[in-house]
Amino acid sequence: MSDRPAVIVDTSSSPQARLRPVAVNAVRFRDDLWAPWMVRIREVTLPTQYDLMEETGRIDNFRRASGKIKQDYQGIYFNDSDVHKWLEAAAWSLAYEPDANLGRITDLVIAEVAAAQQPDGYLNSYHMFDLAGERWSDLQSKHEMYLAGHLFQAGVAHHRATGRRDLLDVACRFADNIDSIFGPGKRHGTDGHPEPEMALVELYRETSEPRYLALAQFLLDERGHGIVGGDSNLQDHKPFRELDEVIGHAVRACYLNCGAADVFAETGEQALSDTLGRLFRNLTERRMYVTGGVGALHAGEALGVDYELPNTSAYSETCAAIANAMWQWRMFLLTGEGRFMDVFELALLNGSLAGISLDGKGYFYVNPLGSRGNHRRQPWFDCACCPSNIARIIAQVAGYFYATSDDGVWVNLYAASDAQVPWRGQTIAIAQDTDYPWGGDVVLRVTPAEEAEFTLYLRVPEWATGASASVNGVPVDGDVVGGYLPIRRTWAKDDEVSLSLNMKPEWLAANPMIEADAGRLALRRGPLVYAVEQADNPGLDPWFLSVDPAGRLAAEASHDLLGGVTVVWGEAEEAPLDLWSRSLYLPEAKAASQQKKVSFAAIPYFAWANREAGPMQMWLPRR
Amino acid sequence: MSDRPAVIVDTSSSPQARLRPVAVNAVRFRDDLWAPWMVRIREVTLPTQYDLMEETGRIDNFRRASGKIKQDYQGIYFNDSDVHKWLEAAAWSLAYEPDANLGRITDLVIAEVAAAQQPDGYLNSYHMFDLAGERWSDLQSKHEMYLAGHLFQAGVAHHRATGRRDLLDVACRFADNIDSIFGPGKRHGTDGHPEPEMALVELYRETSEPRYLALAQFLLDERGHGIVGGDSNLQDHKPFRELDEVIGHAVRACYLNCGAADVFAETGEQALSDTLGRLFRNLTERRMYVTGGVGALHAGEALGVDYELPNTSAYSETCAAIANAMWQWRMFLLTGEGRFMDVFELALLNGSLAGISLDGKGYFYVNPLGSRGNHRRQPWFDCACCPSNIARIIAQVAGYFYATSDDGVWVNLYAASDAQVPWRGQTIAIAQDTDYPWGGDVVLRVTPAEEAEFTLYLRVPEWATGASASVNGVPVDGDVVGGYLPIRRTWAKDDEVSLSLNMKPEWLAANPMIEADAGRLALRRGPLVYAVEQADNPGLDPWFLSVDPAGRLAAEASHDLLGGVTVVWGEAEEAPLDLWSRSLYLPEAKAASQQKKVSFAAIPYFAWANREAGPMQMWLPRR
Repeated sequence: MSDRPAVIVDTSSSPQARLRPVAVNAVRFRDDLWAPWMVRIREVTLPTQYDLMEETGRIDNFRRASGKIKQDYQGIYFNDSDVHKWLEAAAWSLAYEPDANLGRITDLVIAEVAAAQQPDGYLNSYHMFDLAGERWSDLQSKHEMYLAGHLFQAGVAHHRATGRRDLLDVACRFADNIDSIFGPGKRHGTDGHPEPEMALVELYRETSEPRYLALAQFLLDERGHGIVGGDSNLQDHKPFRELDEVIGHAVRACYLNCGAADVFAETGEQALSDTLGRLFRNLTERRMYVTGGVGALHAGEALGVDYELPNTSAYSETCAAIANAMWQWRMFLLTGEGRFMDVFELALLNGSLAGISLDGKGYFYVNPLGSRGNHRRQPWFDCACCPSNIARIIAQVAGYFYATSDDGVWVNLYAASDAQVPWRGQTIAIAQDTDYPWGGDVVLRVTPAEEAEFTLYLRVPEWATGASASVNGVPVDGDVVGGYLPIRRTWAKDDEVSLSLNMKPEWLAANPMIEADAGRLALRRGPLVYAVEQADNPGLDPWFLSVDPAGRLAAEASHDLLGGVTVVWGEAEEAPLDLWSRSLYLPEAKAASQQKKVSFAAIPYFAWANREAGPMQMWLPRR
Repeated sequence: MSDRPAVIVDTSSSPQARLRPVAVNAVRFRDDLWAPWMVRIREVTLPTQYDLMEETGRIDNFRRASGKIKQDYQGIYFNDSDVHKWLEAAAWSLAYEPDANLGRITDLVIAEVAAAQQPDGYLNSYHMFDLAGERWSDLQSKHEMYLAGHLFQAGVAHHRATGRRDLLDVACRFADNIDSIFGPGKRHGTDGHPEPEMALVELYRETSEPRYLALAQFLLDERGHGIVGGDSNLQDHKPFRELDEVIGHAVRACYLNCGAADVFAETGEQALSDTLGRLFRNLTERRMYVTGGVGALHAGEALGVDYELPNTSAYSETCAAIANAMWQWRMFLLTGEGRFMDVFELALLNGSLAGISLDGKGYFYVNPLGSRGNHRRQPWFDCACCPSNIARIIAQVAGYFYATSDDGVWVNLYAASDAQVPWRGQTIAIAQDTDYPWGGDVVLRVTPAEEAEFTLYLRVPEWATGASASVNGVPVDGDVVGGYLPIRRTWAKDDEVSLSLNMKPEWLAANPMIEADAGRLALRRGPLVYAVEQADNPGLDPWFLSVDPAGRLAAEASHDLLGGVTVVWGEAEEAPLDLWSRSLYLPEAKAASQQKKVSFAAIPYFAWANREAGPMQMWLPRR
């Protein structure tokens, strides 16, 4: 259906990228997690989001801008971005599997967006009519470039997904408009919300128009000189190359890093790479939740200082976990290093996926790591950035599974699926049989169209200690390098690779500097972090449980629960509710004497809050 | 030196009070804690505070108001209160022990304050000259009645301490002025900052002028009808009798409760008592720090919601712990119940006493329960409420040691001291020999002027499990009732009572609903809570320690340390700093394998931050 592969981020011609991605439609799921999500996104999430965009005037804002209807602008001035992100999500979903209804509403939305484009290419439904004179007058807050960036991403995705140029052309006309105004020797400026940088690099890759890359670099370079406010909330506090911490607005920080990574992929400027390395370390060694979530603070939707990672009051915006994953994916394509995919998978399966309900139509904006049950997913928000964002990352998830290099094929993620991986002019079919992320055994049947020598790189996550692999029953003798196990051989039809990843549930401890987690343990099994929710533990309050790390843990697949998850059972002690109902502090010896031994059930964090409301706890106090 | 006993809160004629207090100058310390503090407050704290009040224009503001000097008003509009509180502190200090220098500067300050009083009795150095027309125009913020209250308390204290009426007369004139303006049938209003209520009741007690009691009741009753803003920050969100939680600004909440308790003591209105009971339970069962500190939040200097008690980000203002102690003292006088003295002693020795440095001239405004070492005491503040407040409570501490009832004498606190307790027309001498709060053995030699039958009530703190007592070597056979052990007999010269309170260090656990403390333990020994500070643990970072509650704890008196404290030694494990320097989360098994056994020293919380800056931790993670 497309004349271009539906590649999420296209580094295939990027001089600095070690890896090339594989298209979304190169992979076909037949697992219990992603296969149903592909259907749900297509049939539930995107259609219901479209209805809500209509109900809330987001599409009407474009109709108003094109003169089709006469009414006031509705909602927040950056609401166009929800429509653009929805279009991008729809494009990836259509790339994975065409769908008549989704195709129809996608075309409808594209038509409304395109009709609103002004003769000079400008496209922003807010800055119309009486506000037309205010274009580009408030780069700090009005986010016209941010909106443009999402339009560019939508245009690129739609072109890659369908081969059609209509939305891409709209994007290019707007990019040309911006490029005619901003740039070296033209007007200075950048957006208070990073995003157009990565979008412009992709637009450059898709069109080969070097002005777009130059504009991306310009927007990146403009940052940090106080042009849009000078503070970290706007990622304008320091020039990018001088950053040594991920700070300020979490989504903006991660989007900025995406843009810088994309610019580096094309330019190879070492200072950008050095900075990205520093920022990765700062984030993952000091400022990231165990879920891969980012941005501890409600105030300013911001990252906290080092080790400031509160749990029940965590912000950890769904969009920020997604932005983190997007950044890590770019880092991985640049380097081929598994540590980036580890964080990617963590942020995808936990911090991001928790942002949507299992029925595909409820959303968390904020993702606490503990709750008294008062935090519930909502069908929509006035500022509805998260719903379309989670839709677009799920819709493109197939595109993250593989990558290729000159010397072979990289298997990044595992799920029962069939893939057709293009490699050096031929296609290598890879069928995965596994029930990952519930089980750790993966059988990969590798069938190159033509027998060929190449390296199959199997990702071995850092958590999978003692992983082992074999080819056609013969143990692979070799070390994991940078998070991937390289298997070099001449591959022929139906070569079978078996990989065994240790899925033993285990307790995680946190850095003692994280005040919120000291004396507490979190449960991890494979790539998933777990939560103890009231709904699975009748009569127990998860907040009153404490655990001995030496206690027994057992995993049990529960096919009927929450769409099919593996439950982890553990031993705990329950603090005496009666005793504590009228005391704040008690001698430990007295409290301990009334502790009761109980067993508890934990579910994957992403699945919490899908049943009746009740307390939830991720970091259980130690016993 | 006085024609009135220097009684802190005088319930001797209050119909609802079970107990009458004993004068500040009835007790003479010869211990290692309070005796030095009496000297230090007199010779260091109050003189240096006086100098700072001069340097910062606080006294000059009065000179300006009286026309002695011409200059602008200096500092914040409520700075008079610092002067009034200083005067109250000086009065108690002079009551305990006359001092030529302190007497001289006290007289000087009184003269400056008195000279600033206006012909109609109004006294507020801010609302003068061009602002004279704005008197009483902003009850919510300008705090004229709050300042008046502190003046009344100073006048009462000075009269009780010295017998002189000069400052008391100033107070009465101002009270008459307020009473001429506000009241039933006059103007409605109350102060955004509670305080005048308790002060007016004391002024009533000191002068027998019933208008002052009526005005106190009026100010209490006006509250909660939105007159001063309608929010909890101003304690105006609900009528007092409808309160069921201690909320909003912590100092204001506790001062309001003091006022309500004082009004109840005189009027016996059951609804006040019921409300105070509810508020006590809410505070002590849901919202108080283990230090007796109150007010978790920096925002609004406010109490958090139930169980919201963060540690390093605790606000726990010194003034709020003092206000809590002041409230508990009133509750105790009303009831004779030890639970109030338990909280009083906790708040006094920990939450309050931490507010001042051991050299008597550095102050904490905010009292975190954990620190990276960046929180240090300051010599003064622009808003300097805490320095004079901690001075006044220490200066009057002798007055809390005893109380009397018709049937006997109540021993509330313990310290090596000699007391002359007036009881039914005679004097009972009580000499305490003990090194409390370091040791739990107390010998009391009781010598009534005339042999008499009465009950000696010995407070047995809730923490002192298994306490025992004997009289002249014969074990006391009787139960602790409401926190006091009653010993009724005919007492004669040199009767000797021995009380033994268990001073074994012990770990405290917190209510599992307190997110900040879950999985953590705090160390208590007797009435003191302990802190682990870097200075005592070279090479160890207290934040990297974790403890097994079954580990050995040992107490050791250290006479040269921090003015003489008992150190608690314990066993702990130290988390591997190297391992954690580049990781946020690790498998517990991996982290545990590199834990190191160490021993640690803990000091009383009140004494922390008196040496070189370094990390401090109160709630140690469990091992």
